Amino acid sequence: MPATYTLIKKDTETAARVGVLQTSHGSIHTPVFMPVGTQATVKTISPEELKDLGAEIILGNTYHLYLRPGHDLVAEAGGLHKFMHWDGPILTDSGGFQVFSLNDLRKISDEGVTFRSHIDGSSHFFTPEKVMEIEMALGADIAMAFDECAPYPCEIKDVQRAVERTATWAARCKEAHRHSYQALFGIVQGGTIRELREKSARDITSLGFPGYAIGGLSVGEPKPLMYQVLDYTVPLLPEDKPRYLMGVGSPDCLVEGVARGIDMFDCVLPTRIARNGTVFVPEGKLVIRNAEYARDFSPIDENCSCYACRNYSRAYIRHLIKCNEVLGIRLTTIHNLHYLVDLMKNIRLAIGENKFGEFRREFFARFKV
Amino acid sequence: MPATYTLIKKDTETAARVGVLQTSHGSIHTPVFMPVGTQATVKTISPEELKDLGAEIILGNTYHLYLRPGHDLVAEAGGLHKFMHWDGPILTDSGGFQVFSLNDLRKISDEGVTFRSHIDGSSHFFTPEKVMEIEMALGADIAMAFDECAPYPCEIKDVQRAVERTATWAARCKEAHRHSYQALFGIVQGGTIRELREKSARDITSLGFPGYAIGGLSVGEPKPLMYQVLDYTVPLLPEDKPRYLMGVGSPDCLVEGVARGIDMFDCVLPTRIARNGTVFVPEGKLVIRNAEYARDFSPIDENCSCYACRNYSRAYIRHLIKCNEVLGIRLTTIHNLHYLVDLMKNIRLAIGENKFGEFRREFFARFKV
Repeated sequence: MPATYTLIKKDTETAARVGVLQTSHGSIHTPVFMPVGTQATVKTISPEELKDLGAEIILGNTYHLYLRPGHDLVAEAGGLHKFMHWDGPILTDSGGFQVFSLNDLRKISDEGVTFRSHIDGSSHFFTPEKVMEIEMALGADIAMAFDECAPYPCEIKDVQRAVERTATWAARCKEAHRHSYQALFGIVQGGTIRELREKSARDITSLGFPGYAIGGLSVGEPKPLMYQVLDYTVPLLPEDKPRYLMGVGSPDCLVEGVARGIDMFDCVLPTRIARNGTVFVPEGKLVIRNAEYARDFSPIDENCSCYACRNYSRAYIRHLIKCNEVLGIRLTTIHNLHYLVDLMKNIRLAIGENKFGEFRREFFARFKV
Repeated sequence: MPATYTLIKKDTETAARVGVLQTSHGSIHTPVFMPVGTQATVKTISPEELKDLGAEIILGNTYHLYLRPGHDLVAEAGGLHKFMHWDGPILTDSGGFQVFSLNDLRKISDEGVTFRSHIDGSSHFFTPEKVMEIEMALGADIAMAFDECAPYPCEIKDVQRAVERTATWAARCKEAHRHSYQALFGIVQGGTIRELREKSARDITSLGFPGYAIGGLSVGEPKPLMYQVLDYTVPLLPEDKPRYLMGVGSPDCLVEGVARGIDMFDCVLPTRIARNGTVFVPEGKLVIRNAEYARDFSPIDENCSCYACRNYSRAYIRHLIKCNEVLGIRLTTIHNLHYLVDLMKNIRLAIGENKFGEFRREFFARFKV
């Protein structure tokens, strides 16, 4: 059974909606935030901790897993789920974003992308067919098509070429993808240019995928511009399929994305800032490394029910982080992921009660970006 | 209630014995290995994981906690147990070993030791009274007296002076120690010189402590020499009090220490080598980073019941460690501590059945040092 989406309820004030995405490894309640497990592990935490904090699906990175330990090795281990001891749903990206980020190390043609490994400089060639082979070997529940992600800012002709390649490559991916339970999602590109987003949405939706992602955002453009692109792009995607905004994970963007009809999000932000000693609180971000928390014996957030907040003080977590003790970044990671998972749960509840507009206003009255 | 020791059974072939040490935070079954939690955390793992792997007591380091976050802050947090969310027994060392290890950074007099912080170079002065103040503030169940640990090798006169200072300081520690439930243990020094060990044992036992440690071993001397020192030193300690061999943690040394009547051990070895990608197996040490385990999908040890062995393969753990992923060193740390805790449990069972001699022979037939 590939991923099947069921739309449950639409908000009347905004484009927000709740749904369920069913996969062979369990159901995902949308809108959902997906923690990123780049190298077959969500940095610092265990699968049990992920379950405990409420994560329903995680993301794996094709580029990284291809290089280390290798997709063939993961397949030999019985697939990514078994290899990393996570029995819930997994989505793998296509590696497109990563290889296009390797500026000086890559060369693009219509056939595919030649790039050098960031680990040992070795040369590799990704084509849509190769990426499908890798993603099928990894065996995630949802695979993403291989796309070209244009940077921001960028010349129109480059965005245009990326849109065209993304369409051709999506067709080649669909052709090459053969898997009993893995769903293949298409990706819409087009930068911040309305006409190109419209073209890409037409190209990709006409191929027919069980889910659609919006790529090429959150790559440096201002947030209002990203919201504008979502405003005109989301309505171009079929209502009966899940919509995934790639690479977005700050709390304010999640709320705004949901308001525009997005169902799925992923980002390294919550785990990355956690490792720097920054945590989410209802008022925004709190830098727990700061001296002002040295003797603060209250939890990160009095009203948070995560493992870190139930058992540890800001003073202790600060001490651990100042001393480079791993438990410190484990606790901030758990808290930040729990914060986002909990935010999405509350968003779903609000939509269910048709109060999402109110929820959104209250959120922004408190949360300082 | 300070720590109370009850001798339960003595082996007939060796000096091994089983007992129970009761503290306000629970009972400890001896012989016991104590994981080291230097900076108010056993590196990489949580208190729940420690409980789960069977740890009954952990160690905290006075020197490190004094410098960061400061004993006054820990006291303000409600003591070390509460600060670090560990409700089982804790033992704090005296900081003696650490400040004497700071070679160029310290100056010793009969009054105490002036040393510089390894963190910021600031100057500090430890006296027996100061150390008692710190250990009482930390509030562990067992505190260690402030001693002078002579290095190895070392001139006789230096060992002699260390033995004398250790005696004077032990008396001053006993005088200064006032705590309702914390037990103060004395430390016997004397290097590898029999007469000095005898003198130190007389000095320290005559003061009367609820437990005795043997310090100044495992500081670079050959293992046979350490065993020899234990052979003549342990019998000088009262039978009705627990005996603690400081800084020893390799599996072979635990077995040999137990055979000579030692009840308690601590060492950073299992957690330190874990972070380097080395794990204990019944045959000795296994370097899981090695290429030969890249496609080894079996657990570290088929017969081990730890969290790492129940859920993950060598290939996966190797992958994590090669990628510097924290979960990798969490898993090797859990495994190594579980290995030692389990070893001690099996040792206690063997002594209980009066089969420790056999256990010891079988252990060494398999374990390659």
